[in-house]
Amino acid sequence: MQRYFLPRESFVNDTATLPADVVHHIGTVLRETPGYRMVLLDGTGLEYEAEVVTLEKKTGTARVLERRQATTELPVDVTLAYALPKGDKIELVAQKGTELGMHHFWVFESKRSVAKWDAKKAPKKVERLQKIMQEAAEQSYRAVVPMCQHIRPRELTDRIDSFDAVVIAYEEQAKQGEQAAFATVLKALRPGVKLLLIVGPEGGFDESEVNEWTERGAQACAFGPRILRSETAPLYALAAVSYALELN
Amino acid sequence: MQRYFLPRESFVNDTATLPADVVHHIGTVLRETPGYRMVLLDGTGLEYEAEVVTLEKKTGTARVLERRQATTELPVDVTLAYALPKGDKIELVAQKGTELGMHHFWVFESKRSVAKWDAKKAPKKVERLQKIMQEAAEQSYRAVVPMCQHIRPRELTDRIDSFDAVVIAYEEQAKQGEQAAFATVLKALRPGVKLLLIVGPEGGFDESEVNEWTERGAQACAFGPRILRSETAPLYALAAVSYALELN
Repeated sequence: MQRYFLPRESFVNDTATLPADVVHHIGTVLRETPGYRMVLLDGTGLEYEAEVVTLEKKTGTARVLERRQATTELPVDVTLAYALPKGDKIELVAQKGTELGMHHFWVFESKRSVAKWDAKKAPKKVERLQKIMQEAAEQSYRAVVPMCQHIRPRELTDRIDSFDAVVIAYEEQAKQGEQAAFATVLKALRPGVKLLLIVGPEGGFDESEVNEWTERGAQACAFGPRILRSETAPLYALAAVSYALELN
Repeated sequence: MQRYFLPRESFVNDTATLPADVVHHIGTVLRETPGYRMVLLDGTGLEYEAEVVTLEKKTGTARVLERRQATTELPVDVTLAYALPKGDKIELVAQKGTELGMHHFWVFESKRSVAKWDAKKAPKKVERLQKIMQEAAEQSYRAVVPMCQHIRPRELTDRIDSFDAVVIAYEEQAKQGEQAAFATVLKALRPGVKLLLIVGPEGGFDESEVNEWTERGAQACAFGPRILRSETAPLYALAAVSYALELN
C-alpha cells in the first residue's frame, strides 16, 4: 500500500485531512478515487490504514480504519553527524541513511571538509535533503522522517554528552588493524538509548577533532579492514546497527 | 601509500615491470620520480611494498622491498549476483560492493529487470564495471579486484550447488516480519567458504524465481524490517557480512 506522511494535526478523531501534494499524488499520479486504501503516517511512529472519502482539487479527507504502532524503526535512536563531502554525495547519504533507519541527520563542516555551505544557502540545502529523506522514508516503510540539521562543529562537540554512545568512523583505526571497538559499542546498547555516529569527509578527520571527541567519551572505530569512502562509511555503520540489533 | 594492481606476470624475482597507465599516474599525475614508494598488488592476495627504479615515457620498473599477505580481504569468498536495475545504479553497486569486500560480481537479468543488456553491448558494459571495480579496489586497500561477469539466469541457478551458503534478498520476508534467517546463515559460515548473495531489481524477484533457488538450498532473507531499494540491499548484506565475520 502507498504510504504518506501527514502533519500530526491532520488527524482529528477518525478523519485525516489530506494536503494538496497527497491529493495530487492520489488523484492525478495514481488516478485513484474515493475508496482508495493507503497507509498514513503522523511521524510519531504510528501508522493509520485509511480510505479516501473525498477528493477535491486541492484537498481531501480520509477515514482511518485501523491505527497501529509501526514496527520498522530501529530499536535505538540513531543520529548521524556527517561532515560535508564534495559534490552530491550528501544526497546519497541522506537517502540511504533514511532507508537504513537513522533518526537525525546532522551536517557539519569538519576541518578537512572541502565543501562549505554558506549561511544564506544552508536552509535551502537542508530543505532539499529533508525532501529526499521524506521520500525515502515513505518508500522504505519508515514511520518517522529523520530530521536534517546543519550544525556548527562546536555544537556537535557540545551535544556529545547527551548521547549514551558515540562512535567516530576513523580510518586510522582501520589501518592499524583495530577491529573490536565498534562491535563492543553495539553489543552494549539497550533499546531506547541514543547513539551518535560521526563520519568524516574524503580526507577523514583531523587528529585534533578525534581527540576532542574521544575526551568526551566518543569511541574511535574501524568499520572493517578496508578503507571506505566517506559516503560508504555511514551506510556500513547503519547496516551494522540494524544487523546487530534487529537481526541477531 | 598509493596502491596499484599489476598483472601477475609483471613480477619477476624482485623486479616489477610497470605498465603505461601506472607510469602515467606516477610520473604525470603525481609528478613523482625514481625512489617513489608505493604498494603493488598482483591480484592474488599478496601485496608488495616497492620503490620506482626507472621511469620512462611508457614503461618503468620497480624494486620490491617487502612482500606480504594482505589482511584486507573478507574471510569468506563472496559472490554478489545482482539483477540488472534501471539506470546507472549498477555502477554504484559495483563500486560500493568492491569497497565492502565482494569477490565476484555477477550481473543477470531477472524476470522483473526492466533494463536489459543486449549480447553485443554486454562486453563493453562489463569492461566499464571492471574498471570501476579496479579503481575502488585500489582506493579501499583491497588485495583482489572482484571479477565482473554477465550471466544468464539459467547459469545462476545451475551454479547454486557450488556454494556453501546462498542468501536471497527477499522483501516479502521483510514485510512478513522474518528477521532471523540472515544472521543464522552468517553465524554458520567458516573461514574460506563460498557465499552467494542474490539481490533483485526494483520490483523484487518473482516468486517462481525464489522458489527455484530455495529448492536448491538457497535461503530467502530479510535485511531488517525496512524496505530497501534494490541498490541498497547488496550494500546492507555486504556490510553485515563484514560486521559478523570481521568485527565480532
